Amino acid sequence: MKVLKAHKCFEGYTEFYEHESVITQTKMKFAIHRPSNEQNIRGGLIWLSGLTCTEENFITKAGSQKILNELGLVIICPDTSPRGLDLPNEHTSMHFGSGAGLYLDATTPGYRDHYRMYSYVNEEIYNLLNTKYDFKGNISIMGHSMGGHGALTIGLKNPNKYKSISAFAPIMNPMATGWTKLAFEGYLGQDHELWSKYDACELVLSGHSHPNPILVDQGDKDELYPNQLLTQNFQSAVKHSAQKLILNLRKEYDHSYYFVATFLESHLKFHLNYLMSK
Amino acid sequence: MKVLKAHKCFEGYTEFYEHESVITQTKMKFAIHRPSNEQNIRGGLIWLSGLTCTEENFITKAGSQKILNELGLVIICPDTSPRGLDLPNEHTSMHFGSGAGLYLDATTPGYRDHYRMYSYVNEEIYNLLNTKYDFKGNISIMGHSMGGHGALTIGLKNPNKYKSISAFAPIMNPMATGWTKLAFEGYLGQDHELWSKYDACELVLSGHSHPNPILVDQGDKDELYPNQLLTQNFQSAVKHSAQKLILNLRKEYDHSYYFVATFLESHLKFHLNYLMSK
Repeated sequence: MKVLKAHKCFEGYTEFYEHESVITQTKMKFAIHRPSNEQNIRGGLIWLSGLTCTEENFITKAGSQKILNELGLVIICPDTSPRGLDLPNEHTSMHFGSGAGLYLDATTPGYRDHYRMYSYVNEEIYNLLNTKYDFKGNISIMGHSMGGHGALTIGLKNPNKYKSISAFAPIMNPMATGWTKLAFEGYLGQDHELWSKYDACELVLSGHSHPNPILVDQGDKDELYPNQLLTQNFQSAVKHSAQKLILNLRKEYDHSYYFVATFLESHLKFHLNYLMSK
Repeated sequence: MKVLKAHKCFEGYTEFYEHESVITQTKMKFAIHRPSNEQNIRGGLIWLSGLTCTEENFITKAGSQKILNELGLVIICPDTSPRGLDLPNEHTSMHFGSGAGLYLDATTPGYRDHYRMYSYVNEEIYNLLNTKYDFKGNISIMGHSMGGHGALTIGLKNPNKYKSISAFAPIMNPMATGWTKLAFEGYLGQDHELWSKYDACELVLSGHSHPNPILVDQGDKDELYPNQLLTQNFQSAVKHSAQKLILNLRKEYDHSYYFVATFLESHLKFHLNYLMSK
């Protein structure tokens, strides 16, 4: 594991790493922010970013460092897809391939060998964070947009691994919107049964749930809301399930990191509450 | 004046504009952040960015919005040079031309018609901010690296226009370092007398001063410190002058926006103090 950059930021350290991923069979990069007072560290968070993002977007734009230090939380932010490959159509669309891993394990030729972001996050990144700080599973998951979809689906499928789940403007029903359908087809072929394993609405409808409420913030001026994100479908799905949902609709906010930064502190405190309970 | 983008961020608005600059004779872009509670607005700030930056860097990376809203301050962040031109050598170096306007008024052929960032900031941006919010001159100036040089030189030459001056890791003696010498030559030719009008050390040594202390924060792990920034030359210059300097050397911090974000709140509160005094 190679340190690419390290910066003191408030009372902590923002660091960028590169490692050889066993799961994606590529080099992968991620960012970590950790409080300098290690005695004060109380839990870990995995942050999943949206389309076109890298390991840098959250850590440079969300203004998280001061709050993470104060709360005693470590955050790890993986990249959104493998890099350095040249698979068919990998670099032609912002909705598929490079920067658009969708946090699933692909089954189509070429992609199945590398685009395994579900396992990469849920195993490799999870284990790395858990081991490095001896968290003993005291880890929560969160994300934005495509990364919100990742947090919801990974969290719902592994309720015992994550203390809590939250998302900003998540894609909530990717099987049912045009562009994500195309990406699902590219990664998973025509097996719609398999698609449903990576769709938050379908997971809840098929009985998956997390014991703690899921926290979602959503701006009402978000250009993707509601038709691309299908927030209402998830609201409807949880009504018929054991899953509790706290959905905050935020007036005038859009889909950007300006919105994420605004409500980040409330999400970090939400997670801290569950990370501190036994 | 055209609004390019507008985002709600915390309790305020981050907006990007484009206008036809009379002074640079090009289109110019800038960012503004303003608190949504206009009754609470108490003053204006001009932020000048460093080499390679645009109007976006500060406003996306420094985490300023929450604090600006709380303190009731409006900030305006201009781009660092004219754009859309194709002057000789304009796009070949990160130290000269595009993204490297050095906040001076060029006198060399081609550049003298457009690279007039001193007047652009001190007149066009200043007047725009002053008029838009009826600040009646209640404006301070600050910046980072090359923008710190801009804040120091513009502020020292116009002590009556700016209530206070501050800088993060500023270039303090550009006449005396290699790369800035080359840029000065490109913009101003061989007239060293003219160079000295855009050098903070030379300005202080020739009797310029601001009635209030200048606040500077400097990281001791900054890769440009001290040889490229020549911080020690400014410390030495102010000793023989009327200018007061508060220089905070910050252990372990580097030249990045991670450093700027860390100490931004203290700079904003420093300016607020002078913006509120009559």
